[in-house]
Amino acid sequence: MPENLLKGKKGIITGALDENSIAWHTALKAKEQGAKFVLTNAPIAMRMGAIQDLADECGTIVIPADATSVEDIEKLYDEAKEYLGGNFDFLLHSIGMSPNVRKGRSYGDLNYDWVQKSYDVSAVSFHKMLQVAEKKDILNEWASVIALSYIAAERAFPFYSDMSEAKAILESIARNYGLRYGKNKNVRVNTISQSPTKTVAGSGIGGFDDFFDFAALASPLGNASAESCAEYIVTMFSDYTRMVTMQNLFHDGGYSTTGITQELIDAYVASKK
Amino acid sequence: MPENLLKGKKGIITGALDENSIAWHTALKAKEQGAKFVLTNAPIAMRMGAIQDLADECGTIVIPADATSVEDIEKLYDEAKEYLGGNFDFLLHSIGMSPNVRKGRSYGDLNYDWVQKSYDVSAVSFHKMLQVAEKKDILNEWASVIALSYIAAERAFPFYSDMSEAKAILESIARNYGLRYGKNKNVRVNTISQSPTKTVAGSGIGGFDDFFDFAALASPLGNASAESCAEYIVTMFSDYTRMVTMQNLFHDGGYSTTGITQELIDAYVASKK
Amino acid sequence: MPENLLKGKKGIITGALDENSIAWHTALKAKEQGAKFVLTNAPIAMRMGAIQDLADECGTIVIPADATSVEDIEKLYDEAKEYLGGNFDFLLHSIGMSPNVRKGRSYGDLNYDWVQKSYDVSAVSFHKMLQVAEKKDILNEWASVIALSYIAAERAFPFYSDMSEAKAILESIARNYGLRYGKNKNVRVNTISQSPTKTVAGSGIGGFDDFFDFAALASPLGNASAESCAEYIVTMFSDYTRMVTMQNLFHDGGYSTTGITQELIDAYVASKK
Amino acid sequence: MPENLLKGKKGIITGALDENSIAWHTALKAKEQGAKFVLTNAPIAMRMGAIQDLADECGTIVIPADATSVEDIEKLYDEAKEYLGGNFDFLLHSIGMSPNVRKGRSYGDLNYDWVQKSYDVSAVSFHKMLQVAEKKDILNEWASVIALSYIAAERAFPFYSDMSEAKAILESIARNYGLRYGKNKNVRVNTISQSPTKTVAGSGIGGFDDFFDFAALASPLGNASAESCAEYIVTMFSDYTRMVTMQNLFHDGGYSTTGITQELIDAYVASKK
Repeated sequence: MPENLLKGKKGIITGALDENSIAWHTALKAKEQGAKFVLTNAPIAMRMGAIQDLADECGTIVIPADATSVEDIEKLYDEAKEYLGGNFDFLLHSIGMSPNVRKGRSYGDLNYDWVQKSYDVSAVSFHKMLQVAEKKDILNEWASVIALSYIAAERAFPFYSDMSEAKAILESIARNYGLRYGKNKNVRVNTISQSPTKTVAGSGIGGFDDFFDFAALASPLGNASAESCAEYIVTMFSDYTRMVTMQNLFHDGGYSTTGITQELIDAYVASKK
Repeated sequence: MPENLLKGKKGIITGALDENSIAWHTALKAKEQGAKFVLTNAPIAMRMGAIQDLADECGTIVIPADATSVEDIEKLYDEAKEYLGGNFDFLLHSIGMSPNVRKGRSYGDLNYDWVQKSYDVSAVSFHKMLQVAEKKDILNEWASVIALSYIAAERAFPFYSDMSEAKAILESIARNYGLRYGKNKNVRVNTISQSPTKTVAGSGIGGFDDFFDFAALASPLGNASAESCAEYIVTMFSDYTRMVTMQNLFHDGGYSTTGITQELIDAYVASKK
Repeated sequence: MPENLLKGKKGIITGALDENSIAWHTALKAKEQGAKFVLTNAPIAMRMGAIQDLADECGTIVIPADATSVEDIEKLYDEAKEYLGGNFDFLLHSIGMSPNVRKGRSYGDLNYDWVQKSYDVSAVSFHKMLQVAEKKDILNEWASVIALSYIAAERAFPFYSDMSEAKAILESIARNYGLRYGKNKNVRVNTISQSPTKTVAGSGIGGFDDFFDFAALASPLGNASAESCAEYIVTMFSDYTRMVTMQNLFHDGGYSTTGITQELIDAYVASKK
Repeated sequence: MPENLLKGKKGIITGALDENSIAWHTALKAKEQGAKFVLTNAPIAMRMGAIQDLADECGTIVIPADATSVEDIEKLYDEAKEYLGGNFDFLLHSIGMSPNVRKGRSYGDLNYDWVQKSYDVSAVSFHKMLQVAEKKDILNEWASVIALSYIAAERAFPFYSDMSEAKAILESIARNYGLRYGKNKNVRVNTISQSPTKTVAGSGIGGFDDFFDFAALASPLGNASAESCAEYIVTMFSDYTRMVTMQNLFHDGGYSTTGITQELIDAYVASKK
């Protein structure tokens, strides 16, 4: 195993809900690789989760914050800086929620107030985290900022509904804030487009299990797990990837560039019999 | 010149403000090619424009509608159907506005209420037009829907601010609604990613003229004009492009796939002297 | 139907083999829309085909030429210019052949002499057609050049073997020659990435029929036919698309931007029972 | 600094010519991170270089091999396996050469024998390395294979000539062999698309220095150095990126997704005065 990939680095990890969360695994790996960080989640999400156990395991604290609130983000940064004793080297944005998906509204029957909520929670929150960080000058030179995305930002998946647009916003913010913050302070900003993952968020999508199996067949290496995603995130937080910025990085076992696999054709042929 | 590209077709054209508008030229070309259509614009935009003159020239009417209002869109469709005597074969979405850009807020100092407004006016309005159309079943089989986009949806342009995200939403909606509506009724939905254009909207962006000249140097065929864009839109409304859907089509003189031109390097070398 | 889209235009159409060919349909549509052109094919392909019947139907001639031979291309252009009475406004490259695919060599067992042949026939021939055209200055201002591609240039399809690389070359040539020729003479160069099509070339691929059906399920509008592709080509040859260049244009019923369809998931679920 | 990223791993590094080479730096970093490897280069390139010094520094050997020769690759693998005492976990393809570029032939005056040579040396050699590896079953499960590419595979750069096509082939091979080898043995294959780099290969391109400076202005983090590229390669060889495959990964300081920077516009404006 590699060692000390994040030695001496400080950061903030959002979105750890339970042991299926990518953020949860990221916290464990980051700790293993020498990082110090605080955890944060929305007050409402914390009630459902076991995040305090994770904090205990990582020897850190949880700071509740609603990522749609500029004030909460300000407070989060102030308290995290106080606790960590300095500015940050990495941020993980792992936040997404669509009321339309949750409540089963189809893409042809969207509730537009909920659309706004989807965008605000899942994507604009990322801009807020970056804008507040820049205004407070709370990121160190060469800090690395990652948000989690999904290929529905580039291609149409019927079940993903208005989250497709939310992820498209998210990836656009990574590019645009990456340009700005790169020029200003060599901060880099990327998104990781991850395989479908059996997290609380993923499992909330109707027909998810069938799609999950289908995607595994369509990926030469199978679906990437939450744990492997956490490892990838750690490399992106490290100094060994310093010139990668403004990218959407597929961590998906090859799904995104696979046109078809023989297994899928075989399944299709079998279905016709 | 081609003839009858849109013979017998009916549709709606939004966003014609003045003779610099792409929508304005689209109306003229569509009429020339045999289409019937109504014009529409936001009540506030109509006060600034000369859209009634265009309607007179095209022998049609203007129906005011705020594209962020589902009710207005419903009324627009009802009145347009009444006037045109039937359902529609094409829709042009040519609507975009960012209060942050207008008021000179930088990307690191966005007003988030205005962000929501940018998204709503420039992009969610497109979903509303499609959702209302589908619910009313007001589009004919093989109808063609086009929205105007810009390459800032894929790459970072500092002056484009939160309109980058708005265009990313727009392109995502084209893909996702294109999947849905294609399956349901063979309706196709695309975006056209146009060169920077000296329209009212384009000219509102700070430093636009320098950028416009720079983009012309970076495009093997130069910047595409509003008129040539209108011609391209007409081909996309025609039956000769029926299997093109869910695409973002660059109409930009080659800008998007040009890495660099000798002219740009020459300008750069000259600037160092 | 539109009329006179290509009135007064002159050009060359390669690759018409039989009535399933995209080039065959392109010839018929181009004639219908007012173009004059010559047909050409490799001497060896002509022995198999019925191209003379097509020439008779279109009131034109066939000039045999091996597109891998610079000399043959020169002769083709000279004779075509003589016959048509002037320089050309459009060229269609519709040529592809892989000995590895034909002879069933898998991608892990390629014959490298055949690889070179695949590239030369299917892609370098396109550069030769452009380079000879430019050296002879045989294209008019705003001439439109199209080559036919397939999405295997961007994503991996196991059965497509070294043709994937050939198409990647082809698309790259379109960009690079498009830059050069655009700057020099406003000539535009694009590729059209077409659905799998039941042509002689397509049908030579093992398991093609199953894949064809699969692709249709994965495309919101179904697979695009050779005839509809011909119509799209005609719009790209017309003056109404003059500022589109250096693009790879998907003509595929939405396949390229569709992540998944419900039909595919249903087929997959059925296959597990 | 991270430690042991490649502990216990074995591999082959091609293309180290002198201390400016990306491969040279990769060897140094790989050694630092615990890997064992052999170096290889074409016999002709070795005469020019100082590769033996590098081998001494890394405590390894150099095995001359012409990567266009299947026989040489077989011999390379056999000898490397013998020396390293086992199969390989990583391969670096860092080979590229175009006689057309070297001899200053423009893209409108290509020598087609040289085109074939460009493709063979710069791209088909990558397929040969993979095909021989698979036939000999010489890669371990989860081995990581990297080839170096450049953005000219996606966009047109006039000076890059037929190397654009060579890189397009290279990236296509990564996708297609990645699908095959992923399914067969969980081997992953990626390309890294690197900033213009002042290597022997880069500097051979006319006007390179001006372009290099231009690209730096167009990249929010500036151009990525050979050393930073080596660090990135090391992460891609590590187990922490195991589910990344069939990707073209931009390591370019943000160049690829930057539309424009203020610095470029400023330079352009200055050039007009």
